[in-house]
Amino acid sequence: MKQKLIFTNLVGKALDDLVAEAGNPQVVIVADTNTAVFVLPLLKADSKAAADAKVITVKSGDSNKNLEELTSLWKHLSELEAGRSTIVVNLGGGVVSDMAGFAAATFKRGMKCINIPTTVLAAVDASVGGKTGINFNGFKNQIGAFYEPDAAIISTIFFNTLPPQQILSGYAEMLKHGLLEDRETLGRLLGFSPVRPVLDVAGLLPLIEASVGVKVRIVETDLTEQGIRKALNLGHTIGHAFESFAYSHKSPVPHGYAIAWGIVAELVLSHMMLGFPSDVLHNFASYVRENFDAFDITCDDYPALIAAMRQDKKNRDADSINFTLLEDVGKPHIDQTADPDHIKAALDIYRDLMGIA
Amino acid sequence: MKQKLIFTNLVGKALDDLVAEAGNPQVVIVADTNTAVFVLPLLKADSKAAADAKVITVKSGDSNKNLEELTSLWKHLSELEAGRSTIVVNLGGGVVSDMAGFAAATFKRGMKCINIPTTVLAAVDASVGGKTGINFNGFKNQIGAFYEPDAAIISTIFFNTLPPQQILSGYAEMLKHGLLEDRETLGRLLGFSPVRPVLDVAGLLPLIEASVGVKVRIVETDLTEQGIRKALNLGHTIGHAFESFAYSHKSPVPHGYAIAWGIVAELVLSHMMLGFPSDVLHNFASYVRENFDAFDITCDDYPALIAAMRQDKKNRDADSINFTLLEDVGKPHIDQTADPDHIKAALDIYRDLMGIA
Repeated sequence: MKQKLIFTNLVGKALDDLVAEAGNPQVVIVADTNTAVFVLPLLKADSKAAADAKVITVKSGDSNKNLEELTSLWKHLSELEAGRSTIVVNLGGGVVSDMAGFAAATFKRGMKCINIPTTVLAAVDASVGGKTGINFNGFKNQIGAFYEPDAAIISTIFFNTLPPQQILSGYAEMLKHGLLEDRETLGRLLGFSPVRPVLDVAGLLPLIEASVGVKVRIVETDLTEQGIRKALNLGHTIGHAFESFAYSHKSPVPHGYAIAWGIVAELVLSHMMLGFPSDVLHNFASYVRENFDAFDITCDDYPALIAAMRQDKKNRDADSINFTLLEDVGKPHIDQTADPDHIKAALDIYRDLMGIA
Repeated sequence: MKQKLIFTNLVGKALDDLVAEAGNPQVVIVADTNTAVFVLPLLKADSKAAADAKVITVKSGDSNKNLEELTSLWKHLSELEAGRSTIVVNLGGGVVSDMAGFAAATFKRGMKCINIPTTVLAAVDASVGGKTGINFNGFKNQIGAFYEPDAAIISTIFFNTLPPQQILSGYAEMLKHGLLEDRETLGRLLGFSPVRPVLDVAGLLPLIEASVGVKVRIVETDLTEQGIRKALNLGHTIGHAFESFAYSHKSPVPHGYAIAWGIVAELVLSHMMLGFPSDVLHNFASYVRENFDAFDITCDDYPALIAAMRQDKKNRDADSINFTLLEDVGKPHIDQTADPDHIKAALDIYRDLMGIA
C-alpha cells in the first residue's frame, strides 16, 4: 500500500506537514454541504494550508454521488486551473471520498489526493482500498477507478459534529473487524461505549486505528476479492435482509444497525453450525442490545426475511443461502450455506437474546 | 509494459486467439461512424469473436471525444450488462482508443481491453503508453486515466480504407521515430513510399513494428515525461507554428504534414547549431518534398511564424523558444533554445531545400 495512514487528532498540523512535504502546491478542498458548514471552519482555524485553500462544495448524500455532481467537480477543478501536482483534500464521508477521489483520479489523468474522513464508516472503511467512483444508470459505483490517495488523515475530533446514530452505525463495522481479529481487539471494542454518556474522541481514536489495521491486513491478503476478503461479509446476509425488510415496511433503519443485528443472528448460526463459543455470543448480543436496541421481528416475518436472503448477490445459486460464519473470534469460514430451518432456529435464538421473543 | 503487442495482418485470427485465451467472455466492439462502415464488416468476416460481438458506435472526429459521447458509451456498456471480464475492442483511430479506452478504464473500475488501431498514427502512437481520455471544458485530454489495454493488434490491412493523405500524415510520425533511432531504420523508411503507386500493406507492417519499438523504448526509459521523452517533440515547435499559421489563414494542413515540414526546418537548425550531417538533411528534405510537397511561406511570414513558436507550451519563458534538435541520427538534444535570427536563417534554407525560395 503506497497510501500513508496518519492517525491523529491534530489534523491541521498533519495537513500542513503533508502540504509542506509536497512543496506547498495549490490545495483544493472538496467538502459536502454538511462538512462545509460543520467541519471546514474547524479545519481552517487549525491549518494554514486549509485556510489558504480553494473550496469546492458538492451536494451531500449518496443520491448525489452522480455524473452531474462529478461533472461540476471537474468543471471547478478546470476553472481553478488545477494541475497534476495540485492536492485535492476530500473532507467528508464516503460520498465525498468516492466521488472527489474519482475526480482526482481522472482530472489530467491523476492528481495528488488526501482523504480526511469525517464519519466513522469512512474512517474505517472508505479510507482504505482505493475504490473511487459514482453511481450511474441506477447502479451503485458503476463508474470508477482504483486510485489510492497519497494519504489519509484519520481522526475522531470531527465526529462531534455527527448525530450519535451515525457514530454507532460506523461502530458496527468496527465490531465486525474485532470479531474477525482476536479476543483482545473485540474485548476493547465491547468495553467502550462510543456515545454514552458523550463521545470520547481520545478513547475512540486507538480503536479506529486497530480497526483500520484489520481492514488493511484483510485487503492486502486478498486484493482481488476472491477469498478471505469475503470474511468482511460477516453479518451482511441477515443484516441486508433486516435492512430491506425494514425499508419495504417503510421504517428504514441505519445500515450499521442492521449489520449489528445481523451479526448477532449470524453468530447464533455460527454457534449452531461451527461451535462458536456461547460466552462470546452472549457478551456480544448484550452489547448490541444495549447500544443499538433490537430489531423487532416475529416468527411471522421469517418467510419474508428468508426470501430477502435468497436475493443476496453473494449466493451462487437460488437454492443456497451464503454466509460468512465464525468458528471462533478471528477464525472466519467463508462460503458457508445454511438451510431455512437452521436460519429460522437462529432467528428464534436471536429474538431470545435480544429480549423480543 | 504489461500490454501484449501483436503485429499481424491476420487480425481476425489474432482476435479470436486472444478471446479464446481469456475464456471466451462477452466481447463488445467500439467503432466510430467511419470504421463501423469501412472496417467492421472486414473484421466480422474474418473473426468469429467479432461476428458474435455486440457493437457500440461513437461519432468520429476529435470534436466528439467528449463527455456526451463518453456518457453514451457508459450507458451502452451498462445496458449490455458488461462486466469486468468483458473485453472491449477499440476499433478505430486515436479518438476511439482514447475515449473507449477511458470508458473501459472506468466502467466497473476497469474492464479488459484490446486496441485494434485502424490509422497509421494510432498504430504507431496512441497504441502505446496507456494514455486514455476525453476533451473537456475546452481543453484537450483534460479528463482521463493511464490504463494500458491488455493487447493491441497492429496491422496495415485496414489502411486500405484510408485516404492517402491520412496514411502519409501518420508516416511523418514514423519518419520522426526513424530520426531518433538510427541510420538503418531511417534508411528503410526513406526507401519506402507508403502510397505510391499504391499502398503496400505487407511492406509497411515491419516498418510500423520498428516504429512502435522506438516509441516503446523511449516511453519505457522515461515514463514520467521528464527527460528523453521530450525527444518525441522533434519537429513539433516549427511544425505546430506551420499548422496554426495555416489554420489562421483558413487553409488548414494535416497535422502530420506540418510535422514533416517542421522536421525539415528543425534539421536545418540542428545542422546550424549541432552539426547535424548535411547529407542526411538533404536526403530527408528530398523525401519530404517528394511525398508531402512543401509548405509555402515567404520571408514576410517569418514574424507571424516566430510569434506562433513563442506560444508553444514547451517554452519555459517568453523570451526563449524551445526545441529538440539532433546532433546526428539517433542523437537527440532536448531543451535547446534558438534566437529569432537563427530561426529565420533556418527558414531561409528550408525554403531553398523545398524549392520555394
